[in-house]
Amino acid sequence: MPSVLLLSGGIDSATILTSITKENEKVFALTFDYGQKHYAEIEKAKNLAKEFNVYEHKIIKLNLSEFTDSSLTDKNIQVPKSLTDDKIPNTYVPGRNTIFLSIALSYAESKGCSSIYIGANAIDYSGYPDCRPEYIEAFQNLVNLATKKTVTGGNLQIYAPLINLTKIEIIQLGIKNGLDIEKTLSCYDPITENEPCNKCPSCRIRNEALHQIKKGISSEIP
Amino acid sequence: MPSVLLLSGGIDSATILTSITKENEKVFALTFDYGQKHYAEIEKAKNLAKEFNVYEHKIIKLNLSEFTDSSLTDKNIQVPKSLTDDKIPNTYVPGRNTIFLSIALSYAESKGCSSIYIGANAIDYSGYPDCRPEYIEAFQNLVNLATKKTVTGGNLQIYAPLINLTKIEIIQLGIKNGLDIEKTLSCYDPITENEPCNKCPSCRIRNEALHQIKKGISSEIP
Repeated sequence: MPSVLLLSGGIDSATILTSITKENEKVFALTFDYGQKHYAEIEKAKNLAKEFNVYEHKIIKLNLSEFTDSSLTDKNIQVPKSLTDDKIPNTYVPGRNTIFLSIALSYAESKGCSSIYIGANAIDYSGYPDCRPEYIEAFQNLVNLATKKTVTGGNLQIYAPLINLTKIEIIQLGIKNGLDIEKTLSCYDPITENEPCNKCPSCRIRNEALHQIKKGISSEIP
Repeated sequence: MPSVLLLSGGIDSATILTSITKENEKVFALTFDYGQKHYAEIEKAKNLAKEFNVYEHKIIKLNLSEFTDSSLTDKNIQVPKSLTDDKIPNTYVPGRNTIFLSIALSYAESKGCSSIYIGANAIDYSGYPDCRPEYIEAFQNLVNLATKKTVTGGNLQIYAPLINLTKIEIIQLGIKNGLDIEKTLSCYDPITENEPCNKCPSCRIRNEALHQIKKGISSEIP
C-alpha cells in the first residue's frame, strides 16, 4: 500500500523508513524546510530517501520562523546545551506536528495513499504535547471527518509506530533493518552537516542510548 | 482579545472581519498563497486588511499545486461553470482547511491569541467535508491536546461563526457591518481581478443571494 512518511533526517523517521521500505511499501517521503536554523537534517533526509529508494520525495518550503519563537527557528534564542527541567523546552515549535500532519494528509489523499507515518515518540521525548498518543488519536479523529476519501468510505490511517518505544529500542530496530545511524542527524544545533554539537538534549538522549547499546553488546561478548 | 482570522478575500471571511474589528479585537489576519490559479482574491484580502486596520497581515506561501489535483490549483482541470450534482466537486482541495487551521494554530499560539476565526459554511456550501460543524469540533478537540498553551491550562478556541448561516444571512450581516461587498471576490475563476466569471458555483450562489436580497429590499418599498 502506498504511504506518506514524514522524513526529518533524524533517527526516528529514518528507522520507520527502513521498516516500511523493507515491507515493500511505495513510500512518498515528505520533508519540511520550515525555517529551522540549519539545513543539515534536510540533506540527511535527501540522502536517506535516495538510499532507501522512496517513490517520491517532496521538500516543502514553509517559513515558520516568520512568526514562531522557538530556539529551533529563532536565531536570537539559544538551543539548550543540557537536558532541562522545563516540561516543555524552548525547542518547542508551536503547532509543528499539526502542520506537518495536515500537509501530509493533503499529500496522502492526492497520491491515493492509505497511511501516514510519523516518528513521534512519547518516551524519550522532550515534553512536546504533539508527540503523545492522545494527540495522534485526536488527529486520526479529525482525519476521519476531514477528507473526501474518509467521508466517502475510504481509510486514511495515521501511524506513529515508535510512540511507545525507548530511544534504545528505536536505534536497535533501525540497526536491525540495516540503517547506518551515522547517516542520520538528531542534533538541534549542529556545528557542521556531519558534526553534531553533542550537548543539546537531542544529542544527549541519542548518545546515551548509543552508549547503553554498546555496553549491552560488549557485555554479551563472553 | 487578540485573534487570528483566516482571511481569503471572499465574502465570508470579510464578513467576519467586519464583525470582529467592530468588537475592537486585535486581529492577526492570515491569507494563503497556496498555488491557486489566480492572485485576485489575495489582492482583495490585502485591501480588506488595510481598510479594517488589522494589527498584522501575513500572507503565507505554500505551494499545494505541486501535488493536489483540484480545479482551483491545477491548470489542466477546468473549474465547473454551473452548479453541479457532485457531492464533492473538483474544486475540493485535499486537506485545505486542516492546513490553514494548523498554520493559524501555530500563528495564534506564537502571538498569544486565544481565538481563531474561520469563514467555513455548511449551508450554501459546496460539499466540502472540512466545512462542517463536526469537522470544526474535531479540530477543536485536537487543539486542546496539541499546544503548549492548551495543555498548560490556556484556551485556544476555534470559531466558525457563519457555519450555520445562509449566504443571504452572511451578506446581510456584512452589509450591516459596513462591508462593501464589491471589495470582496468569491469567484473560483475570475476573468480579471475585478471581474468574476459569474458562471462558477461560487459566483452563482453569491449572485442568487444578492438577487434575493435586492428583491426583498425592493418588495419592502410601499
